[in-house]
Amino acid sequence: MGSLSARSFRSEAAAELPSAEARRKYRAGHAGVSTAGVAPGFVQGNLAILPEKLAGAFHRFCQLNPKPCPIIGMSEVGDPRIPALGLDLDIRTDLPKYRVWRNGELVEEPADIMSHWRSDLVAFVIGCSFSFEEALMADGLSIRHIDEDRNVPMYRTSVACEPAGPFAGPLVVSMRPFKPADAIRAIQITTRFPAVHGAPVHFGKPEQIGIADIGKPDYGDSVTIAPDEVPVFWACGVTPQSIILESRPDFAITHAPGFMLVTDLRNSEFSIQ
Amino acid sequence: MGSLSARSFRSEAAAELPSAEARRKYRAGHAGVSTAGVAPGFVQGNLAILPEKLAGAFHRFCQLNPKPCPIIGMSEVGDPRIPALGLDLDIRTDLPKYRVWRNGELVEEPADIMSHWRSDLVAFVIGCSFSFEEALMADGLSIRHIDEDRNVPMYRTSVACEPAGPFAGPLVVSMRPFKPADAIRAIQITTRFPAVHGAPVHFGKPEQIGIADIGKPDYGDSVTIAPDEVPVFWACGVTPQSIILESRPDFAITHAPGFMLVTDLRNSEFSIQ
Repeated sequence: MGSLSARSFRSEAAAELPSAEARRKYRAGHAGVSTAGVAPGFVQGNLAILPEKLAGAFHRFCQLNPKPCPIIGMSEVGDPRIPALGLDLDIRTDLPKYRVWRNGELVEEPADIMSHWRSDLVAFVIGCSFSFEEALMADGLSIRHIDEDRNVPMYRTSVACEPAGPFAGPLVVSMRPFKPADAIRAIQITTRFPAVHGAPVHFGKPEQIGIADIGKPDYGDSVTIAPDEVPVFWACGVTPQSIILESRPDFAITHAPGFMLVTDLRNSEFSIQ
Repeated sequence: MGSLSARSFRSEAAAELPSAEARRKYRAGHAGVSTAGVAPGFVQGNLAILPEKLAGAFHRFCQLNPKPCPIIGMSEVGDPRIPALGLDLDIRTDLPKYRVWRNGELVEEPADIMSHWRSDLVAFVIGCSFSFEEALMADGLSIRHIDEDRNVPMYRTSVACEPAGPFAGPLVVSMRPFKPADAIRAIQITTRFPAVHGAPVHFGKPEQIGIADIGKPDYGDSVTIAPDEVPVFWACGVTPQSIILESRPDFAITHAPGFMLVTDLRNSEFSIQ
């Protein structure tokens, strides 16, 4: 063992995790179809990268809006590593697909952002509902959009986020329909995951939170709601992206929808009991 | 201090509790209007007394139906004391008002049951929603029937309890209306109280659990439900009483509605976190 440091030893151990394996594949250029179902049990995150001049205000925005914007990791200014999420992680290469934005316009969808990286960039990784969906399914609950092989339906609401600097706008929610008894169980389970959106923010009548047509989500796909089911709404990690883009920063990078950052954290680490 | 035993010392300390004070008043014959609001912070319970020949089946019934029938204390056969709920407690005198039943018919409503006590009787004390209502109010939620100065509305449902011996019948639920976000909070709070009915069993459409008219409760009073509110239903401690009386035992004693047993347990002891 001799010169092997504790850090490099941990790094090697981490390199054997399915999450680290997935990142190595993405780093080598294999994008796949999405990260859904990749490295089960490991936390996946939304990515938002901003120039330092905007990063402080965005960080405050997340602090003020923890339900839609739970930060699970962030980089130092100009540093592409986030060792807390994976010792070998390089945020410039380890996602399968990125989106590069200039003045709020999508300009490129590259497989890596080596050529876009700058010394003033800060990366934010924000929790994602995949973490609690796994816990719901482990408890025997069905997730409709998974059963119907669609993306989760997401809606812009009439609920305003707390503003910070240039960042302001509506809360975006994701929706999963359940029978009432299952909705009660889903509330109990997701309450255990405050760091990944936590308990729902609303259930029942969509118009109470400004959703005009439940059949027409603003993002993702619509799903079936049976007559004996109620729609249950969770704060959604699309909120910060939607708000970043609405504020039209001169430069931003995000993950491409469905192509998340796969981390070495385990979903179970986010359960508070 | 000399001959003062640990037990009698505890008993004296308990005698100073507001709950013990209330029991002493009831013992002396002061019934009051109900036990609502008496000894805030202390657990109140439903009372059911049965002959030993039925007590085993009733105990099994409670075991099989813990949400409506959480037993928080019971006596030895023929013993009127339940020291776990109050060292000085005498179940024959310490409630303000009782009901005596023969073959399912109410025959008397006495202030004590000294003349009815028998060596074959077993007393069951069953948790009551007062415990979690206090926690809901402490969190800033309004309880409609308290605001409207009425009894909580209760309904017989189409949900069958698990039967045991002669005891079988429908689940009775209590209903409190909330806006959805407050209902979510109420679910979180009452989940912490599994020993006093715990989380709701249903919310939303009353007909899904066999309630034909939400405006006509089977017990208690109806309350206002605003258009932006949903009815939320909890398993109710009236279930065991309703089921005992439907099975028409030759002899039973219960508390009179609203005149509960005040115990020395604290509501906070029933919170699991």
